[in-house]
Amino acid sequence: MAIPVEAFYLTPGASGSLQQQIRAMVTQGILAGRFRPGQRMPSSRGLAGHLGISRITVTLAYADLVSGDYLTSAGRSGYFVSETAPLAPQFPVSAPQGEAVDFRALTGGRFSGAARVARPEDWDSYPYPFIYGQADPTLFDHQNWRQCALRALGKRDFAALTSDYYERDDPLLVEQLLRTILPRRGIAAREEEVLLTLGAQNALWIAATLLLGPGRRAGVENPGYPGWRGVVTATGAAAVPVDVDALGLPPERLAADVVFVTPSHQCPTNATMPVERRVALLDAAEAQGFVIVEDDYEFEMSFLKPVAPALKSLDRGGRVIYAGSFSKSVFPGLRLGYLVGPPGFIAEARALRALMLKHPPGHIQRTMAYFLGLGHYDALVNRMKNAYRRRRQVMAEAIADEGLEIAGQGGFGGSSFWMRAAEGVDTEALAIALRAEGVLIEPGRAFFAGDGPKNYYRLAYSSIALPKIAEGVARIARALR
Amino acid sequence: MAIPVEAFYLTPGASGSLQQQIRAMVTQGILAGRFRPGQRMPSSRGLAGHLGISRITVTLAYADLVSGDYLTSAGRSGYFVSETAPLAPQFPVSAPQGEAVDFRALTGGRFSGAARVARPEDWDSYPYPFIYGQADPTLFDHQNWRQCALRALGKRDFAALTSDYYERDDPLLVEQLLRTILPRRGIAAREEEVLLTLGAQNALWIAATLLLGPGRRAGVENPGYPGWRGVVTATGAAAVPVDVDALGLPPERLAADVVFVTPSHQCPTNATMPVERRVALLDAAEAQGFVIVEDDYEFEMSFLKPVAPALKSLDRGGRVIYAGSFSKSVFPGLRLGYLVGPPGFIAEARALRALMLKHPPGHIQRTMAYFLGLGHYDALVNRMKNAYRRRRQVMAEAIADEGLEIAGQGGFGGSSFWMRAAEGVDTEALAIALRAEGVLIEPGRAFFAGDGPKNYYRLAYSSIALPKIAEGVARIARALR
Repeated sequence: MAIPVEAFYLTPGASGSLQQQIRAMVTQGILAGRFRPGQRMPSSRGLAGHLGISRITVTLAYADLVSGDYLTSAGRSGYFVSETAPLAPQFPVSAPQGEAVDFRALTGGRFSGAARVARPEDWDSYPYPFIYGQADPTLFDHQNWRQCALRALGKRDFAALTSDYYERDDPLLVEQLLRTILPRRGIAAREEEVLLTLGAQNALWIAATLLLGPGRRAGVENPGYPGWRGVVTATGAAAVPVDVDALGLPPERLAADVVFVTPSHQCPTNATMPVERRVALLDAAEAQGFVIVEDDYEFEMSFLKPVAPALKSLDRGGRVIYAGSFSKSVFPGLRLGYLVGPPGFIAEARALRALMLKHPPGHIQRTMAYFLGLGHYDALVNRMKNAYRRRRQVMAEAIADEGLEIAGQGGFGGSSFWMRAAEGVDTEALAIALRAEGVLIEPGRAFFAGDGPKNYYRLAYSSIALPKIAEGVARIARALR
Repeated sequence: MAIPVEAFYLTPGASGSLQQQIRAMVTQGILAGRFRPGQRMPSSRGLAGHLGISRITVTLAYADLVSGDYLTSAGRSGYFVSETAPLAPQFPVSAPQGEAVDFRALTGGRFSGAARVARPEDWDSYPYPFIYGQADPTLFDHQNWRQCALRALGKRDFAALTSDYYERDDPLLVEQLLRTILPRRGIAAREEEVLLTLGAQNALWIAATLLLGPGRRAGVENPGYPGWRGVVTATGAAAVPVDVDALGLPPERLAADVVFVTPSHQCPTNATMPVERRVALLDAAEAQGFVIVEDDYEFEMSFLKPVAPALKSLDRGGRVIYAGSFSKSVFPGLRLGYLVGPPGFIAEARALRALMLKHPPGHIQRTMAYFLGLGHYDALVNRMKNAYRRRRQVMAEAIADEGLEIAGQGGFGGSSFWMRAAEGVDTEALAIALRAEGVLIEPGRAFFAGDGPKNYYRLAYSSIALPKIAEGVARIARALR
């Protein structure tokens, strides 16, 4: 029995080429059991006429389906559903299941309860998105990324794409990291001192899991990156908040086993720690026997003054574990970061990563290696720095014009201002009110440990277009009045 | 001062096009500070002559470098290094660091000490690789994967590629999972019951971290997947080995809080658990209050008999957490799997995943969604099943001819035989001896808890070519004699 042409229709607005849409209709019909092995397909002329498309499109789609063994060609008799076509097993699916087990109680709700920065998923539909950490399509070098990705999908890179790397990393990317990226932070490292991770978040998770546990204490910056407190708490350790000042984390009275710090740009105040304080911090680590985890986020975005070398570059005793990321400067969906530390630490981190997720996908590692090797990465960073410099200037002027108060802005650059509203202002309520005005800001409360102040907020300029900045800031000022 | 043509040379055998090689030489020279802003580049004619390549290649490379702001064009005067070219910060790199901290002692060496299956990294250079879990280039549908990846790199998918997904998954892939994949296992699930993970290993890690901890007990199959014991032990829980028989895990006397099980193909014996035993296992879970984690690996590779529905499909009480993977059937370097469970469990798992690694890279999720939606996945699985069926038959004959003993082979298919050598044979020594013969086998000891028997080994046929099987098995038999 022939399959009638009426079984096929094009959905307006569907994605993919016409040939791909035909392919999807045929394969889904076969896999769902609606089209049976041996059934004759509509003629290419008949289906083309029915869909109102060119016959060659249908012919090409059919030829493609023959090579995937969905169809067979019987010459002039036409095309038939293959007798050996892929067939999905068909089972009665189970009835909706009960929740006999209270999983929230069983797991202790340990993770879902953590503080988060509130972020709407459709941020890019707001005209004034002062949000942090999303890629800007007007700055990203989409074309060259695509070319590098395509090269990494080639036959020559088959093993890099498909292999179970066991515990290893892509040697090309490790080479770029050792030769290109780390020397710019003043860090000389060997292969056995480096591990690739699923972004900086994953690097911090691995470091915390290895170094902490019940009974141990972690010093965390206050205000600080909220992800840290969650990561520390998950290990069973105590997160001890340490108030930062205008120079970042003070090195005195750090009673902890591990200290987490952002020396390049303190998160969220943007303070840069001066060299004397870095030396004092390392001396304290030596004297008191603690280990330092350095999150060197955003070091590339130093466009006002040259960047300072990493804290890790001053580390003579091997007490600093360094975490870096490509996800910030390339795009966050990349999920690629790295850890640098003494070989004994990296060996443990590698074994933990293998148990946790094996390794970052090979294709992404190889694409990044090409993007670095061809200089696209540095061209991108340069373009971002230029754009951020202009945006920051316009934003600083708008903030001054509107009489808003900057609580922290950093001397090197970065991508955000840390702002303070008047006492008594609840910036979480402010953020919700501003959404109706098309403005997104980030309330500051999640950055503070415990019951922190409610009147701080962060304004990032990494995703907002230059011409929108002045009006966006004006709307914030209006809402605050 | 002009840069001399002698600063450029082509490395024989270098990867990438000539244009890419020129680009790499120029950008690396600039980033390393060897070529200074304002310096004149060699003329395109001069460089082409020096390198012995076509002038248009140099011209195209220069034009590309202008768009990345490495070079500027001064019309007839030629090309110059841009005054605003990306410049890498130059620091004296630190001297080799000491290891003042004994990280192995500090971290307890908890992870690097776990048992592993010994696997040489250059497995594909051996003519007789009876190894498990690597992609076979002769079976993989490289061309269509590449096309799907290319589509997912397009402008329309910019957000899917680059976004910080926060805690979400790609809606297209989730839809494919709910509509296409899970119904084939007899599972009806809603969006809030599904979470994407970095492969099955990551799914198991997340489940264990949520459900276990110090003082809890996990029942694990013995012999069983070595990764499980590592994952369980990492949470601080006790791994209680439960001996499997010819029908898989026996449901009696499971004194545990969580039970890990592979009902479809027991790893490594390949036993398939009959329906009666599955029902008994669920009844035991209900009566004793334990939770089951089902690792449904390799269900696609059922080519001898139709596959049975998943244990999860029989689960009325919401006691089964289901882990699946695309990495096995597509390629292991993909690192994409999923968890299915009650909404309360998935919400916690999602929060934990966010802390641990945010989310799987967006580009990989979208590529997989297209590969599924266009029917390429099922065509690939069909091709693999046909190849495995033939290989298995040849292998079974060779094993019988050589008088080797099969300890477990599974009735549905799979990709390996579980083998037993004579008492007293140490298969780890055997594996090393066989490497010299070009043969790779997997010693079985890592699958057993504690001091298990040493005379088991696994022979997989997922990566070995059909014509190599008979000779490979003969070499094993020879070494055993």
